[in-house]
Amino acid sequence: MRAVDLIAKKRDGHALSSDEIGWLIAAYAADELPDYQMSAWAMAVVLRGMDDRETADLTLAMARSGDMLDLHDIAPITVDKHSTGGVGDKTTLLVAPMVAALGLPVAKMSGRGLGFSGGTVDKLESIPGLRTALDAAEFRQIVRDVGLVVAAQSGELAPADKKLYALRDVTATVESIPLIAASVMSKKLAAGADCIVLDVKYGSGAFMHTLADARLLAQRMVAIGRHAGRRVAAVLSSMQQPLGYNIGNALEVQEAIGALRGGGPADLVELSLALGAQLVLLAGKREHEADARALLTNVLDSGLAWAKFRQMVAAQGGDLAFIDAPERLPSAPITHDLPVPRAGYVVAIDGMALGLSVNELGGGRARKDDKIDPAVGLVLRAKVGDRVEAGAPLLTIHAANAAAAERVAPRLAAAYTLAAAPVSPPPLIEEIVS
Amino acid sequence: MRAVDLIAKKRDGHALSSDEIGWLIAAYAADELPDYQMSAWAMAVVLRGMDDRETADLTLAMARSGDMLDLHDIAPITVDKHSTGGVGDKTTLLVAPMVAALGLPVAKMSGRGLGFSGGTVDKLESIPGLRTALDAAEFRQIVRDVGLVVAAQSGELAPADKKLYALRDVTATVESIPLIAASVMSKKLAAGADCIVLDVKYGSGAFMHTLADARLLAQRMVAIGRHAGRRVAAVLSSMQQPLGYNIGNALEVQEAIGALRGGGPADLVELSLALGAQLVLLAGKREHEADARALLTNVLDSGLAWAKFRQMVAAQGGDLAFIDAPERLPSAPITHDLPVPRAGYVVAIDGMALGLSVNELGGGRARKDDKIDPAVGLVLRAKVGDRVEAGAPLLTIHAANAAAAERVAPRLAAAYTLAAAPVSPPPLIEEIVS
Repeated sequence: MRAVDLIAKKRDGHALSSDEIGWLIAAYAADELPDYQMSAWAMAVVLRGMDDRETADLTLAMARSGDMLDLHDIAPITVDKHSTGGVGDKTTLLVAPMVAALGLPVAKMSGRGLGFSGGTVDKLESIPGLRTALDAAEFRQIVRDVGLVVAAQSGELAPADKKLYALRDVTATVESIPLIAASVMSKKLAAGADCIVLDVKYGSGAFMHTLADARLLAQRMVAIGRHAGRRVAAVLSSMQQPLGYNIGNALEVQEAIGALRGGGPADLVELSLALGAQLVLLAGKREHEADARALLTNVLDSGLAWAKFRQMVAAQGGDLAFIDAPERLPSAPITHDLPVPRAGYVVAIDGMALGLSVNELGGGRARKDDKIDPAVGLVLRAKVGDRVEAGAPLLTIHAANAAAAERVAPRLAAAYTLAAAPVSPPPLIEEIVS
Repeated sequence: MRAVDLIAKKRDGHALSSDEIGWLIAAYAADELPDYQMSAWAMAVVLRGMDDRETADLTLAMARSGDMLDLHDIAPITVDKHSTGGVGDKTTLLVAPMVAALGLPVAKMSGRGLGFSGGTVDKLESIPGLRTALDAAEFRQIVRDVGLVVAAQSGELAPADKKLYALRDVTATVESIPLIAASVMSKKLAAGADCIVLDVKYGSGAFMHTLADARLLAQRMVAIGRHAGRRVAAVLSSMQQPLGYNIGNALEVQEAIGALRGGGPADLVELSLALGAQLVLLAGKREHEADARALLTNVLDSGLAWAKFRQMVAAQGGDLAFIDAPERLPSAPITHDLPVPRAGYVVAIDGMALGLSVNELGGGRARKDDKIDPAVGLVLRAKVGDRVEAGAPLLTIHAANAAAAERVAPRLAAAYTLAAAPVSPPPLIEEIVS
């Protein structure tokens, strides 16, 4: 096989065979195929597309380029949850303990935050003592003992995807639904879960700007899962505004703890129930969504989900004193209220601008090895549809110092759109793809 | 400027500005832009295209990446001729001395043969003593003294094109009319001629398979020339069969000498007159094609073109004894006639198969530094439209040994298509683009 022929085949709009895709990825992972051929192929894919079978082949080839986790010796079935990335999204901290409390083991490998959206691993690490860098033996042990673990993704999971993603990033070949779908799913397949629920966000602050694109991406990922013999469903959720009220690592853990203890914001709880319900259905624990939601509401209300979360935190070395009294979690020395400029109704909140502001405060990364400050962030005081009065706080900035807070204030003020007439808040969940 | 943004712009179908294209090529030529970004951009160009202005900008940027020849101090106007590559095409050996004999200086940089079509430099080097590796001073001296020089292209002419072409070759990004046009024209612009005639071949054996594609390529190249302030015309000529009867370096020189001395095959003379006439018109020496052709026919018939050719050979160190008695040029030890399998009419001759057979005989290169045998080649005995009788020679193989001749015989036999009914030979020249 010659790489140039496979590139030409895709350039001319033809589908590559399974063998051809397998050869291409194996050669690339082994550093036998140069970047300049891979990037030309990737651009041909961006402009010519790939069918479902090709996309599944690419996904499996990338998944198989590294370790493939198999936990069937310790759990007959495991479940996983993935989000395409949203500002203020702490649903994993709710969904994972809820389904684990129902006896569905969650063995989750999670990424760190990069760009404007945070990562679950960063959030958990704001709990003093908690470790996410777990070796394989520890990881398996916690799955067996607790049925819930969240670890930082190891370098050996889908290394071909890691290499290809870095190349796509600098060659303008990120924007391809089949390539995005294959990238996400290669890590999910390698991580070994049998049932996977995907939270595919759309809106101005999301990677997919339109519902139509989000639907296409969700359909692709579900199809890949089916090709690979996994059970996959996707929830299409709006990212017209941040989820919940808190943005920033420790602030989000605080809010999630509140929700696990029975006091969470409606949108956060609603999306967590919707995602959890899909896992309950996929795992065959219930047949109807209403029954699945009732089950989940029960583990939340009864405190079983909160107990499971505490068990996980303890197993990963976290100090329970800090989550039992979450006000003791890292907190910023400065809080500064941003006032409402004029009375009216909140029409839109630019989540991306808020996420980038948290980065600028030191709460996120611009580069992979930046150190982050877990304490900084934002607490929203109004969401879309709310009436606000001039001079009242629009949001509270949690910053390391006053200068940092002042620096982000103009961008934050600009992130809110106010109007004289009330608007209805956007629907949170648009549809389920399964 | 960031390369990834320029790649994305082209990926999304937008035109790059002159500055953007200039920056891209300058960075690539300086090894500051990695191959993997350039190949992604090239694939985006293949699939999204470039407009005339972008193509002209690319061409000029590549031309300016190295030396730009300027001969205006020694000649007020110079002319050049380029062919997209044809089997048996020795028109340069006729056109150049004809127009030079009319007082239009020809200062030609020519490539070596690669693949199935031969190069003028290789052909000329079959004349003992003749040198084509000329330094700048020698080159200019011969232009001044003789008005005709053909030198091997130096490495410093359009080095960005050389680098990009090598990359395109291994990334399936060759097949783009704007990129092909820019590649050809960058070298022509750098070589400094004021008037350029292009012979754009089409047909199964040519780089452009259809007349429509050849026309698009010709229009692009003419437009580039106009943007760059040069006078350019293109002749669209059919490559339904080889030009003339001889294929192979010394054999082609022999045939060209025959034509210069008044005994050339009709198609070779006709195409040479057509190409030469365009140069006469572009240079403003005549206003009408018929007058231009009459002028050229006169220099051919009068022996002035032949005298000019002899002058150039002598100036480049060639031994005139060999061209005055061309049967003394390198000749193969073995000649072998391939018989006509059954009586009929020649319907088609696959020039590419013939060209590749000459390569296999040792007369061409598969790789850039292969050594070639100037003596080997083919002499056709029948062309399209001719009646042939069973057992009569179809063509004669000139080989280094009998085994080599036998090896290529089956491919050569398969290259001829015979039929019971006569066909008209295809038109040689389809149209002029100017």
